[in-house]
Amino acid sequence: MALIVQKYGGSSVGTTEKIRAIANKIKGYRDRGDDVVVVVSAMGGETDRLQGLADEIGSPLPREMDMLLSTGEQVTIALLTMGLSAAGVDACSFTGWQVPIRTDDAHGKARIDSIDAEHLKTELGRGRVVVVAGFQGVNEANDITTLGRGGSDTTAVALAASLKADECQIFTDVDGVYTTDPRVVPGARRLEKITFEEMLEMASLGSKVLQIRAVEFAGKYGVPLRVLSTFDDGPGTLISLEEDVEEPIISGIAFTKDEAQLTVLGVPDRPGIAYSLLGPIGEANIEVDMILQNVSGDPSSDYSATDFTFTVHRRDFDRAKGLLEQAASELGAREVAGNTSIAKVSLVGVGMRSHANVAARMFKTLSEENINIRMISTTEIKISIVIEAKYLELAVRALHETFDLDAEPEKVDSELTPLSEQD
Amino acid sequence: MALIVQKYGGSSVGTTEKIRAIANKIKGYRDRGDDVVVVVSAMGGETDRLQGLADEIGSPLPREMDMLLSTGEQVTIALLTMGLSAAGVDACSFTGWQVPIRTDDAHGKARIDSIDAEHLKTELGRGRVVVVAGFQGVNEANDITTLGRGGSDTTAVALAASLKADECQIFTDVDGVYTTDPRVVPGARRLEKITFEEMLEMASLGSKVLQIRAVEFAGKYGVPLRVLSTFDDGPGTLISLEEDVEEPIISGIAFTKDEAQLTVLGVPDRPGIAYSLLGPIGEANIEVDMILQNVSGDPSSDYSATDFTFTVHRRDFDRAKGLLEQAASELGAREVAGNTSIAKVSLVGVGMRSHANVAARMFKTLSEENINIRMISTTEIKISIVIEAKYLELAVRALHETFDLDAEPEKVDSELTPLSEQD
Repeated sequence: MALIVQKYGGSSVGTTEKIRAIANKIKGYRDRGDDVVVVVSAMGGETDRLQGLADEIGSPLPREMDMLLSTGEQVTIALLTMGLSAAGVDACSFTGWQVPIRTDDAHGKARIDSIDAEHLKTELGRGRVVVVAGFQGVNEANDITTLGRGGSDTTAVALAASLKADECQIFTDVDGVYTTDPRVVPGARRLEKITFEEMLEMASLGSKVLQIRAVEFAGKYGVPLRVLSTFDDGPGTLISLEEDVEEPIISGIAFTKDEAQLTVLGVPDRPGIAYSLLGPIGEANIEVDMILQNVSGDPSSDYSATDFTFTVHRRDFDRAKGLLEQAASELGAREVAGNTSIAKVSLVGVGMRSHANVAARMFKTLSEENINIRMISTTEIKISIVIEAKYLELAVRALHETFDLDAEPEKVDSELTPLSEQD
Repeated sequence: MALIVQKYGGSSVGTTEKIRAIANKIKGYRDRGDDVVVVVSAMGGETDRLQGLADEIGSPLPREMDMLLSTGEQVTIALLTMGLSAAGVDACSFTGWQVPIRTDDAHGKARIDSIDAEHLKTELGRGRVVVVAGFQGVNEANDITTLGRGGSDTTAVALAASLKADECQIFTDVDGVYTTDPRVVPGARRLEKITFEEMLEMASLGSKVLQIRAVEFAGKYGVPLRVLSTFDDGPGTLISLEEDVEEPIISGIAFTKDEAQLTVLGVPDRPGIAYSLLGPIGEANIEVDMILQNVSGDPSSDYSATDFTFTVHRRDFDRAKGLLEQAASELGAREVAGNTSIAKVSLVGVGMRSHANVAARMFKTLSEENINIRMISTTEIKISIVIEAKYLELAVRALHETFDLDAEPEKVDSELTPLSEQD
């Protein structure tokens, strides 16, 4: 008998019919003898409906927005608890303040300070399924707070940590984490396991299965996290601390087309230029992803000059370019160039730490496909490149094959021998 | 500068446009220098929408129904507070549990045990309008409770009592309490004042302006209550403890067509028959209104027999008749008769206490119109009669004229001299 925390998102509880189906699914776990805590989001579309009402009113006070939006999950916990009762399962619902889940004061993006799990334990001890509203908490002044969109994942992980649950299961509309997007590479394979570090790199790079803060939280508190499908049975993907002894070098390939590139050419090279260029971008709350700085290759420069490049989300491109042109002109830079037709591809895997040749093999593969690399950035467990958007699918498929990702881990060839055998 | 508690119902806050209009109305009171506490219901239609979701799930657990339905008011308080902010008025919202409004455990029909108004006073002291969710509270176990439909009136009155407010204003879609329904008697007149006792008799008899529990509550705690229109300006009707010295004998005429009559004929007259007949009705949760028992006029009875009559809501007629037929047959009664084409008309007024001739004038008026009276029931401040439904409008108009209700109180003729002058 295990203690499991399960989280179902908005699309899993979007209709009363789906809520009844979830109730039956949970009954299966109860019948197996597991203790179950369920975290749910607002019914799909409900948060947008509430946001729409607020937009019509204007003046979106942060405290009142949380008061408003938190009703979404409150509706779901009541309906699911009734659904469990209809399925013959004894259950009890809790809002964030009833648990209580204590947070700081940052309305709309609050962080969890502490969870008092005593009430939940009492109800579990009575043999009940406990249904908790995700995404919400309460601050010291007893004001309702929300953790921001997608925060239900964080609620689930925090409850699992607090209850010392055996596993935190995030139910979603995909059946696990894949080596890459199956729509691009038909041979993409579901990973049985992945480490937190790898998952963080995958998630932040566009494999949007899990909220990144939830993964960080799970890693920090050592909560075993599993991603699995609401609608199909199957083991999903386990995200854990343990680095599997049979781990391949590369776990997966993440990619995104959502970014745009901005380059300042011919910047007089002196201390502080990075700050001068990125300061206004940061002040405008535009998120910057990759940042690169090179000595300028421009032969006409009669002073020591540099080229400075970074990427932003495509929706922020125009705003960022305007800010950058002003900053660049103040610095005496020659030109600001931009490109919105780029794509970013990243190889992720803890196994690459000790494999210097991964980057070389990646570049060789792209070269053989005649794909030009515009930017390169690396971390310990990730290599990211920026290429022209039109080559994205070709690049991902070629790399997926090069690193043998469609093969089961047991079948890796000698060059990809697991770490343990190499040591 | 006064402290006012205002309550706006679901139709007053049914759209974001209406909520903005209410915010501007409240701003008017603030600009005048009043301290304002606002109690609001769920947006019109929202409670039905939530109830519909619960119906689709089945298994309406009382605790979870309250969890579900209480979100309706929570949405309104957030939107109205934002609307006030948009209108330049500083405001702060409170759910029932945040106040807190402590209730007993009777989910769906909870009674208020106590209100801790300290938080509200603090916010009022900061110059803020306080917006409170009506209809809801919290029990000792921190479960959300609801006071039942229409309970927002009760919330407003309870808050007014707790805060010792100068007045509790119930905004509605009518501009006050009328001498009778203006749709039936075009000359019906808005009352400037009415006593709590009169209002209770009027409310329970079909002038559904205010929730009856709220009026009881206001009377018990001496809270001056005013009914007025959300959409028009005007003083409305003040419901107060003071019996006006200029009070006419009759304040108003209430009526209903919602009832049906059941009569058991020829019941052997022995102790306990009332209980034998009404016991099964009460157990089936059918509410009984007028009850009459007469010695039977049936000459064929060779034993002492009685006729027993009562009225129920028309929707309960068939169920009540079935139960009554069984009970009547067990008692050896001759027959059960029923009539669903009845109407009840009631004269209400504290002034009639000392006027024995009111009943006589009522009966004379009806007799002159050839209207047959089927049942009569009286209290200290009310005379109710049951007549055939088709005569309802005729009876109400005739009585309205007889008792001079379309005249202003100052103009009453000598026969209707106010109490003070008669003493």
